[in-house]
Amino acid sequence: MQTWEANVRRVVPYTPGEQPDHQDMIKLNTNENPYPPAPGVCKALSGIEPESLRLYPDPAADDLVKAIAEACGVKKQQVFVGVGSDDVLAMSFLTFFNGKKPILFPDITYSFYDVWAELFRIPYERPVLDEHFHIKKEDYFRENGGIIFPNPNAPTGVALSLADVEEIVAHNREVVVIVDEAYVDFGAQSAVSLVDKYDNLLVVQTFSKSRSMAGMRIGFAIGDSKLISYLNDVKYSFNSYTMDTTALAAGVAAVKDREYFDGTCRKIIETREWTKKELKKLGFSFEDSMANFIFASHESCPAEKLFQALREHHIYVRYFPGKRTGNHLRITIGTQKEMEVLTEFLRNYLNEQKI
Amino acid sequence: MQTWEANVRRVVPYTPGEQPDHQDMIKLNTNENPYPPAPGVCKALSGIEPESLRLYPDPAADDLVKAIAEACGVKKQQVFVGVGSDDVLAMSFLTFFNGKKPILFPDITYSFYDVWAELFRIPYERPVLDEHFHIKKEDYFRENGGIIFPNPNAPTGVALSLADVEEIVAHNREVVVIVDEAYVDFGAQSAVSLVDKYDNLLVVQTFSKSRSMAGMRIGFAIGDSKLISYLNDVKYSFNSYTMDTTALAAGVAAVKDREYFDGTCRKIIETREWTKKELKKLGFSFEDSMANFIFASHESCPAEKLFQALREHHIYVRYFPGKRTGNHLRITIGTQKEMEVLTEFLRNYLNEQKI
Repeated sequence: MQTWEANVRRVVPYTPGEQPDHQDMIKLNTNENPYPPAPGVCKALSGIEPESLRLYPDPAADDLVKAIAEACGVKKQQVFVGVGSDDVLAMSFLTFFNGKKPILFPDITYSFYDVWAELFRIPYERPVLDEHFHIKKEDYFRENGGIIFPNPNAPTGVALSLADVEEIVAHNREVVVIVDEAYVDFGAQSAVSLVDKYDNLLVVQTFSKSRSMAGMRIGFAIGDSKLISYLNDVKYSFNSYTMDTTALAAGVAAVKDREYFDGTCRKIIETREWTKKELKKLGFSFEDSMANFIFASHESCPAEKLFQALREHHIYVRYFPGKRTGNHLRITIGTQKEMEVLTEFLRNYLNEQKI
Repeated sequence: MQTWEANVRRVVPYTPGEQPDHQDMIKLNTNENPYPPAPGVCKALSGIEPESLRLYPDPAADDLVKAIAEACGVKKQQVFVGVGSDDVLAMSFLTFFNGKKPILFPDITYSFYDVWAELFRIPYERPVLDEHFHIKKEDYFRENGGIIFPNPNAPTGVALSLADVEEIVAHNREVVVIVDEAYVDFGAQSAVSLVDKYDNLLVVQTFSKSRSMAGMRIGFAIGDSKLISYLNDVKYSFNSYTMDTTALAAGVAAVKDREYFDGTCRKIIETREWTKKELKKLGFSFEDSMANFIFASHESCPAEKLFQALREHHIYVRYFPGKRTGNHLRITIGTQKEMEVLTEFLRNYLNEQKI
């Protein structure tokens, strides 16, 4: 080891899902939207003058902030934007989880939370989900340095009711509570309606799932203007210009097309409900997902074996080894056609296994 | 104050230069390139299938990393990319300046360094530039927790020789030394040639200046593969997907057009040398800038007064209040035409002042 290595921050990074690139693959492993972005996004991108790229973008991302504020029915002072919701969440951990008491998040949840906590040396505790993978709200009624959970939760897809979310926020007025709503548009109730009532509530959403723009890296947070102002101070202490010119233009176009957004969300929900029925017939069980994925285990075939079999046929799903998650697959909802191919493959494969 | 505010990280953020948006303005305040990006950038952007934006980008940014490695004559394991050099520098502070001893950077320099140090609670000391705004290399030969300086320095434009940079790196093998080469392509010598010799040297560059792409937010670092790997661990603990699909495509196209790059750098250098002569005739003095800006003070007219007069005529330059910097203007080098308008305005204005 070199002497300079003594000053290095050592961390065990988050492992993102595989990004395979096969022709004719079915990619159901990173919860992307199977439908393209709104038509206006294409137009917005082709309208960018290359000459304009020599200039810095607007550091305040004002057009995008305004468009999001309008879509969410809040003031623009209540909106923060970043490079995907991961950037927004990383900045939020750095800004709000700065005390000595442990922050709280579920034992089974988005696997980036403990990575951020380790990166910023934030103490944390992980209340255990119940045997049906549900958050027990009472676990969050004790002393803590802050709270974060996704709603619906990942990778389980299980949603809390808005009343339960409100109870957690109301019980924790002395800390910041972050509700990570990456998947909320597929059927759960958003807590954005509560931000004017609770100044300690930050709601985080993303363009990567319901807005079909994982490739453009846009996420945002909604909260009390004081919370947002603290977040902006940290952002301006980290990187003044996080959002590039193309992301700003694409983001505005995506937010403005409410009809397209509603339509794709509806299609994904329909396909999810169809997929649930088919998977049940095939012997899978799962909690009732309100997200664009299903976290399922099979009655007889181990998840890891299914994962490998699917992979060999270029159908990619996500597998999380571990005591409580290791017999489950997280299957993203693709197009109806893709889910038909998936269930057909599973039907044949599981039949072959019986022989 | 609310109770939750006790856990908030309070910081005084960096103030980016104003981004005015007037027709016919002359914008010489944030060191942007006056020429558009390479023609291939436009082609690369229009070649992006909107459908592809629904998918996550390559988290390793492999195409861009390879293109930069090739252009810089290093291995791809020696390249790190980020959302502008500010992102690369923020990650580097977080990764490498993690000891208890103070890091060192000049008293007059890029004003983001102390902001990052404050954000991450890194102790720092600021050796004083000499009376000609030159870095005294001996100031960096004492015990420290890490070193960072721009070469050429900002906002002074003064460059260290490669031999002096090497001396600083060689004297500090027990810490990481970061050379911030945001402006190196306009006439200074890059330390990239030293990275194979010194595993404690990290060289940071950007696409925002010499590659005319401030709007696309691309920066990179070159160093020993071990340094880069530590940096990647922190990046993957912060945000897996920092570079969006359009930035990756635009970046590759920009790097590949060496001829266009050389041509625009040459034009800017020629205009800078012409501007130096004109400013001298008008009674300005300045150190010999090797950057795409000149840090100048006038023999009789206060900088703040000039700044305001220029501003009223929609000619924007940068003014840094402060004891040692407060009588200087930092003037970005624009097109030859823009600099002619600037010097003509100054000639008339200074003549009027004499009457």
